[in-house]
Amino acid sequence: MFPRPSGIVTLLSDFGSRDPYVGVMRGVVLRHNPKVVLCDLGHEVPAQDVAAGAFWLLAAVGRFPSGTVHAAVVDPGVGTARRLLVAAAHDAYWIAPDNGLLSHVVAGDPAAEVRAIDLEHLNVRPPSRTFHGRDVMAPVAGWLSGGRYGFSALGPRITDPVLLPALLGGASRIVHVDGFGNLITNVSAAACEGCTGVVVGGRQVPLHQTYAEAPVGSLLALVGSYGLLEIAVNCGSAAKVLGLGREALVEVRGARSGASS
Amino acid sequence: MFPRPSGIVTLLSDFGSRDPYVGVMRGVVLRHNPKVVLCDLGHEVPAQDVAAGAFWLLAAVGRFPSGTVHAAVVDPGVGTARRLLVAAAHDAYWIAPDNGLLSHVVAGDPAAEVRAIDLEHLNVRPPSRTFHGRDVMAPVAGWLSGGRYGFSALGPRITDPVLLPALLGGASRIVHVDGFGNLITNVSAAACEGCTGVVVGGRQVPLHQTYAEAPVGSLLALVGSYGLLEIAVNCGSAAKVLGLGREALVEVRGARSGASS
Amino acid sequence: MFPRPSGIVTLLSDFGSRDPYVGVMRGVVLRHNPKVVLCDLGHEVPAQDVAAGAFWLLAAVGRFPSGTVHAAVVDPGVGTARRLLVAAAHDAYWIAPDNGLLSHVVAGDPAAEVRAIDLEHLNVRPPSRTFHGRDVMAPVAGWLSGGRYGFSALGPRITDPVLLPALLGGASRIVHVDGFGNLITNVSAAACEGCTGVVVGGRQVPLHQTYAEAPVGSLLALVGSYGLLEIAVNCGSAAKVLGLGREALVEVRGARSGASS
Repeated sequence: MFPRPSGIVTLLSDFGSRDPYVGVMRGVVLRHNPKVVLCDLGHEVPAQDVAAGAFWLLAAVGRFPSGTVHAAVVDPGVGTARRLLVAAAHDAYWIAPDNGLLSHVVAGDPAAEVRAIDLEHLNVRPPSRTFHGRDVMAPVAGWLSGGRYGFSALGPRITDPVLLPALLGGASRIVHVDGFGNLITNVSAAACEGCTGVVVGGRQVPLHQTYAEAPVGSLLALVGSYGLLEIAVNCGSAAKVLGLGREALVEVRGARSGASS
Repeated sequence: MFPRPSGIVTLLSDFGSRDPYVGVMRGVVLRHNPKVVLCDLGHEVPAQDVAAGAFWLLAAVGRFPSGTVHAAVVDPGVGTARRLLVAAAHDAYWIAPDNGLLSHVVAGDPAAEVRAIDLEHLNVRPPSRTFHGRDVMAPVAGWLSGGRYGFSALGPRITDPVLLPALLGGASRIVHVDGFGNLITNVSAAACEGCTGVVVGGRQVPLHQTYAEAPVGSLLALVGSYGLLEIAVNCGSAAKVLGLGREALVEVRGARSGASS
Repeated sequence: MFPRPSGIVTLLSDFGSRDPYVGVMRGVVLRHNPKVVLCDLGHEVPAQDVAAGAFWLLAAVGRFPSGTVHAAVVDPGVGTARRLLVAAAHDAYWIAPDNGLLSHVVAGDPAAEVRAIDLEHLNVRPPSRTFHGRDVMAPVAGWLSGGRYGFSALGPRITDPVLLPALLGGASRIVHVDGFGNLITNVSAAACEGCTGVVVGGRQVPLHQTYAEAPVGSLLALVGSYGLLEIAVNCGSAAKVLGLGREALVEVRGARSGASS
């Protein structure tokens, strides 16, 4: 069944902080649920980088109270005919444009259910064609978190959301670069058991358990806070040192299984 | 009449995020109203740019619950004899130094009422002459939002606040540059009806309805989320491409009325 | 005695905003105290700069409601054997790694009490060795703020926390550089009485009461919002103009006492 709303709404976007856009979204959520507890997941997703946004959402899975509503606005197609979605997955709700943002969240929960928000039924006529975060997603997040509409009332169920390529499975590779320049792979902690090191960008990189075990400025690999193998530089940026980004291949040496799980 | 306080306080400033100044303001509001709901409108107003701050405040009009208290700190004259103001306008309250920050908010509401905060009467003796956001505006925001003082008790009514030149009216021009480099004009959506394009900086710019309708990297004009005509570049910065900023003139071609409304 | 928890948790870190790390910490605090009021003290402490973080915490002393829990994550030693501490000081609670972050907060309160968080007793087994902010400090902050554990139940009292050199006392010097490039000294307002000016970096700098009293672009000294003597440039950066940072010496001319108090 669907969780009872926690009354918490998180906001994720690529709006940055140089404008009042996020502040205004907060206000609109409050107008539609005056008792809401607002919480920023973050607003510095690289501009229009849906893949990065999808990874940020994955980081929130299981970290918030049951029934939290996550509203995500990375929306290069704003104002076009693309649908707006709401998903129930991982004991939480997720609102986003239909561009792949929800891919990893939905893929990770076999019981996930996705619906297309029915603007007409909800009587929402966006006053702008450029800011659906404010004009659609914020009201829907307010209503869902405050119980004015249940999940099932927001629109019809769909089975064809836009999906990015799966994160796990396939070749071992970098799937995310974080703000510190750490290179996060799709190799799970389990797949690293017995691993003696990593080869990436032609460089041999030793496996450690903490950043501090490597000399300052040196490359290391470790199982990071996402539960995935990361390539890092102690007090530095692995992305800069290696000149690598998403999709670069990684070879795990000595692991029981070479494949990611 | 004046709205009942919503219990919400928003904070706006040019403090950025590289210091604990905003965090400390949050604490002081909480000390003066432990039940307050705090909400950032934003803190990346360009340093001491009162005109930009005034535009940010305008973006909040009508977007928050009735009776929200907005406290705005863009205050190059901090510590001098300039007054501190509180206004009731647009069903909300607005606290700011008397330097023009409240211009557009007050100009847009014929029923707006402005008062000069009477520090002596409120028994506020600022411990610093450099941080009235923390020492005066935060306590006043806490008191007003929590009902300890009503609006009329904060000081005498005044009729001579410092005002910036009016945003609407006058020549069609750029009045704000947002963080993405979009150039926002004072031309209203209504004044754009029938418009076929815009001339700005000697360039002809076509009118579209969404960013995505223009090729990536191309200039376009559209009615943006402020309800005003904007000059933008799809996935780019119009400010950089055109080398233009506030006060640059804009010519609207083919509109029913060439003047802004 | 120890204050009753206010239900407020502040977060301080060097995580910046380019990742979901802070957002995820917020979620974990909410999971462990669904009624918590979250408040950012700030997240732009320079990376791994424990001395700067310690100064930020000092700025929060006395500014939040009694019984507020401050959780601070500037943690270059994450995953090593360093302890995690919780202190009761200045009518508030402070959670941080044992690396000096709590130095100034603890030094300023003779009644301060420090405890080492006993992870085993609390049944906390961090799933990661790289993100104790999320896996240890956030749960503990939730529990302490929500009353599930009292301060004394979090671990044994200790008397040997890692301490940075004392801020006050010793030579008059710069102890902090803020995000605007203001140089904050350890010279108290009291020690400035009768002062006619300051010599710093070989330059004579006049004492003023507000930034606006000096010409734009000019060096000035004033007692700033920390209650300490600051070297500033009106609308500029004293750090850049003087090329100075922490530990640079300052000479106060004409003060009753040349020593800091």
